[in-house]
Amino acid sequence: MKLENIKDPSLIKGYSKAQLEELAQDIRHFLIEKLSVTGGHLGPNLGVVELTLVLHHLFESPKDKFIWDVGHQAYVHKILTGRADQFDKLRQYQGLCGFPKRNESEHDVWETGHSSTSLSAAMGMATARDLKGEDNSVVAIIGDGALTGGMALEALNHIGHEQKDLIVVLNDNEMSIAPNVGALHNVLGKLRTAGKYHKAKEELEMLIKKIPAFGGKLAATAERVKDSLKYLLVSGVFFEEMGFTYLGPVDGHDLDDLMENMKYAKKTKGPVLIHVLTKKGKGYEPAENDALGTWHGLGPYKIESGEVVKKPGPPSYSGVFAETLKKIAREDERVVAITAAMPGGTKLDVFAKEFPERMFDVGIAEQHATTMAGGLATQGLKPVFAVYSTFLQRGYDQIVHDICRQNLNVLFAIDRAGLVGADGETHQGVFDIAYLRHLPNMTILMPKDENELQHMIYTAVQYNDGPIAVRYPRGNGYGIKMDQQLKTVEIGKWEVLKEGKDACILSFGTMLPVAEEAIHYLESQGIHVTLVNANSAKPLDEKLLSQIAEQNIPILTLEEAALQGGFGSAVLEFYNEAGYRDLTIKRMGIPDYFIEHGSVSQLLEEIGLTANQVSEQIIAMVPRQRQRA
Amino acid sequence: MKLENIKDPSLIKGYSKAQLEELAQDIRHFLIEKLSVTGGHLGPNLGVVELTLVLHHLFESPKDKFIWDVGHQAYVHKILTGRADQFDKLRQYQGLCGFPKRNESEHDVWETGHSSTSLSAAMGMATARDLKGEDNSVVAIIGDGALTGGMALEALNHIGHEQKDLIVVLNDNEMSIAPNVGALHNVLGKLRTAGKYHKAKEELEMLIKKIPAFGGKLAATAERVKDSLKYLLVSGVFFEEMGFTYLGPVDGHDLDDLMENMKYAKKTKGPVLIHVLTKKGKGYEPAENDALGTWHGLGPYKIESGEVVKKPGPPSYSGVFAETLKKIAREDERVVAITAAMPGGTKLDVFAKEFPERMFDVGIAEQHATTMAGGLATQGLKPVFAVYSTFLQRGYDQIVHDICRQNLNVLFAIDRAGLVGADGETHQGVFDIAYLRHLPNMTILMPKDENELQHMIYTAVQYNDGPIAVRYPRGNGYGIKMDQQLKTVEIGKWEVLKEGKDACILSFGTMLPVAEEAIHYLESQGIHVTLVNANSAKPLDEKLLSQIAEQNIPILTLEEAALQGGFGSAVLEFYNEAGYRDLTIKRMGIPDYFIEHGSVSQLLEEIGLTANQVSEQIIAMVPRQRQRA
Repeated sequence: MKLENIKDPSLIKGYSKAQLEELAQDIRHFLIEKLSVTGGHLGPNLGVVELTLVLHHLFESPKDKFIWDVGHQAYVHKILTGRADQFDKLRQYQGLCGFPKRNESEHDVWETGHSSTSLSAAMGMATARDLKGEDNSVVAIIGDGALTGGMALEALNHIGHEQKDLIVVLNDNEMSIAPNVGALHNVLGKLRTAGKYHKAKEELEMLIKKIPAFGGKLAATAERVKDSLKYLLVSGVFFEEMGFTYLGPVDGHDLDDLMENMKYAKKTKGPVLIHVLTKKGKGYEPAENDALGTWHGLGPYKIESGEVVKKPGPPSYSGVFAETLKKIAREDERVVAITAAMPGGTKLDVFAKEFPERMFDVGIAEQHATTMAGGLATQGLKPVFAVYSTFLQRGYDQIVHDICRQNLNVLFAIDRAGLVGADGETHQGVFDIAYLRHLPNMTILMPKDENELQHMIYTAVQYNDGPIAVRYPRGNGYGIKMDQQLKTVEIGKWEVLKEGKDACILSFGTMLPVAEEAIHYLESQGIHVTLVNANSAKPLDEKLLSQIAEQNIPILTLEEAALQGGFGSAVLEFYNEAGYRDLTIKRMGIPDYFIEHGSVSQLLEEIGLTANQVSEQIIAMVPRQRQRA
Repeated sequence: MKLENIKDPSLIKGYSKAQLEELAQDIRHFLIEKLSVTGGHLGPNLGVVELTLVLHHLFESPKDKFIWDVGHQAYVHKILTGRADQFDKLRQYQGLCGFPKRNESEHDVWETGHSSTSLSAAMGMATARDLKGEDNSVVAIIGDGALTGGMALEALNHIGHEQKDLIVVLNDNEMSIAPNVGALHNVLGKLRTAGKYHKAKEELEMLIKKIPAFGGKLAATAERVKDSLKYLLVSGVFFEEMGFTYLGPVDGHDLDDLMENMKYAKKTKGPVLIHVLTKKGKGYEPAENDALGTWHGLGPYKIESGEVVKKPGPPSYSGVFAETLKKIAREDERVVAITAAMPGGTKLDVFAKEFPERMFDVGIAEQHATTMAGGLATQGLKPVFAVYSTFLQRGYDQIVHDICRQNLNVLFAIDRAGLVGADGETHQGVFDIAYLRHLPNMTILMPKDENELQHMIYTAVQYNDGPIAVRYPRGNGYGIKMDQQLKTVEIGKWEVLKEGKDACILSFGTMLPVAEEAIHYLESQGIHVTLVNANSAKPLDEKLLSQIAEQNIPILTLEEAALQGGFGSAVLEFYNEAGYRDLTIKRMGIPDYFIEHGSVSQLLEEIGLTANQVSEQIIAMVPRQRQRA
């Protein structure tokens, strides 16, 4: 069928199994075709086609609530709720969001992007339902990887205790973004191999009741044994201990199996966990045989061959970081690396290849990663936690309380700092300066290009006076020549790249090309601008700032980060503290709202972080007589 | 013995059981006596006397590492490591810290204050040990309450997976600060009642081997049954599933039992969890019979009667908050309250008494609490999360990603905002303005006194345009007259309390008395100062700020919060953005270092947040001719 004709999930309510199977096939074709052009999270969505169909078949959205953990697996849900016609603009500027979005549809009841939030949200919604005396189902769909996140465990604990009526669908595909880490995963592995044991368990209980010897000899502990029967087989013991009714494992691509278990879950009182086994990329061979995780989320590809369309380009910032760290680690035994389930994204997989013993993937667990780094640092090692700016938000308290307060030598390699593009507002790395700058003992650096990045990483590893953060953007460097020899950058000494008498631009990190382009244009207008590569937001180069102030020229600060509390604010604070009063300063950066998805250049255009805007601001600030001079 | 003579824990290495028992008694007397004067965490420390003795008897600190989760139970450890002579200044300015402190002793290898960090730190230290090829034990001592914190669960998961050699002592006293919440606690409860079952388990295994019927009938599942025997009794199944060797429950006041199990743990490979049952307040009757949790941490008391020395005073801010919320909840069914294991501290216990169904204690789980509040808000309820400023740091990502991004109507009642005194640097609530102000959609209020607090809480409940935070300090209000009728405060409209022609003080929240005292003095010097109760840090009262700027008088901002990114910075940002250039502004607040323990007034003195300093700053700013005028 033409999926664009689906206006509402009620359509499939009366569908037969055969019809659902046909629809599943249509959806798979649709996804494979559409995403070959736009890119997107193909693997995860191919894995949940049947699951999503069964949910919409059995439940009544939006009265019943579906909460998609992480949210990149909600494409099928979007198709079934009338959004198939928008897939040509998936993840594009002002197009369909790659995650659930409340203003897109009443069927998106909760927005996600970061992992492990769904159980808490479900608990909130179920609690509200009960308080209001309403009657609807709340279903959270969470991956096995997301379950390692502490907040999901906090929620499991609370839900189990309250015996709240809600359904957790554990979408177990063995591999979230990286191979899952942790004991929890081992538990799931055991469950997986145990087969249809909840039936076996029933049989066994019957059997044991019939053995007189058993009942006789153990009379003293009879009561205890009765309680304990549920542990007789390796069952969903972990979740049952938590207070959940455990169902599964269910074949996530078998409509009958899914339907049967989901119906049972729907009528069960108290919290239920359905353990569904799915295969990422199901139905598309290249994505099914995805050893490297390429098909989790990707750009355009050729459908027939499964060849991913790669634009050749300079090495990525992540790559430069990882290669540099590897080089340093060869000489410096103190260096160890940590990732929270992002070995591929951070490129620490490259590091792990050479130093498997010195790389730790702790799962989706930024809190633990941060504090574990602190523990390593107390013993004289130099832990490097490579993490996306937006995910490090999860470790904020640990940075404050464990790392900064104890002034430990932990290096935060903050990847995806600044706007990230297609992933949109949940992933924009724009708050890190603001959430780190007010912390005592913290140092915050950002290089202007990939060559400076390698030196900065080297510098940060040498730095032994406390925590240090080096932030760098998503995507490729400029392809500039890389120095062969690593060297130390002087922290708190900015680089004057160009001197001009009319104004000054303090460019933080990779905003430099924007500044350069503006300056190039301004030159043509007879305005000469000093350009500073301000590569540290904390500390500032106070000496240079003073010198600039003495020149009494307008100053413009430029950063791809939230303006409030950001780099420009640090400059204001310094000048205020130092008693400079009559300065003309303009701060440019990310305004006070959440920036949605789109290409980075479209987003920069939207918020006015462009060379044009920079030129205009400078022209507005430079007194007219100077402009004429 | 005189405890002051203990210089080093090596002293007790050769102690007999009788000697240890005597020492335990001496320590209890010492603690009961000393703390009756200074106050402190009596209950928790009386509970771990034997445990701490056994640890120092069997292990070699500091080569072997003890990591005290939360840390308020480390007094006995402090005594055994040569610090008994400092207990007269416990938790006092420049005296002994109430938590482990690395600069106090080489035996304090990790600092704590917030809960649930110890397992991650232990994992870091154990990993470093193995990488360096060293040989020492790492022991984390964690309470049952702290285990509900997500990061502890993240760490359990990772440690179990890595099969790292380390020991977790689960100090299970049934009650952390509040009665523990959650399924995890139910599990522990089951363990507790099961008695000495690890011995019983062995017996049972033997027995079953001897039952031919059992072995015969179940041949088909023989292998599975063998694996599953460990579940035959309600045992440490939860932790064993996580990959730990589980020992216990152990009587935490029985030296033999402790010694035997700890020795076994020491020689066991891989992670071990010893489940130790202790009684808070053990050995001091008033503290043992502590239904209200008074003896967890308290001020001075009379030893004989157990009467707590109470200074009569006006109601606390927490109390005013809770009473107000109760009053509002009677009229407004949307209102529900959430606490993360602090029903007493936040006074939500008062609310819960009247509305047991509308108060949720989620355990030490600020992440879950925040996002659950979001879930409630999506369904039209008005969740109020009452939480200490420093603990809300744990929910930062959830505030960003779930609450602010979705612009949900969640009210954060931020208690203990500002300096808290004796608890010291881990508990100072000084970062919340800086970590909230840069978040889109957020509103941040602080009242000048308890009467304004009640109106602000009322206002914040009525506010339906997104998240809103009302912060208020620890301790008592001023005892001023409380309005009977709750009313709405206009958000973003500050209150001019006094007009003066020479300067202006913008006082944020409860810094007002400091400002008033300074102004009183300045009047006597002929300097007339405008005083503004600036009761919102976001939004600012831009209209008033503009009017003040037009007067061209010096401006002083005053806040009990980190200066960087704080309220004063917001004022700087506004004036910068609005194009005001030639202003004289001075920002006063918390400087860029961590503030240790002491009385609030001593700490304010140390950092210069006093009426004297305010006067001096104003005098320095006001031009001399005006001063003479």
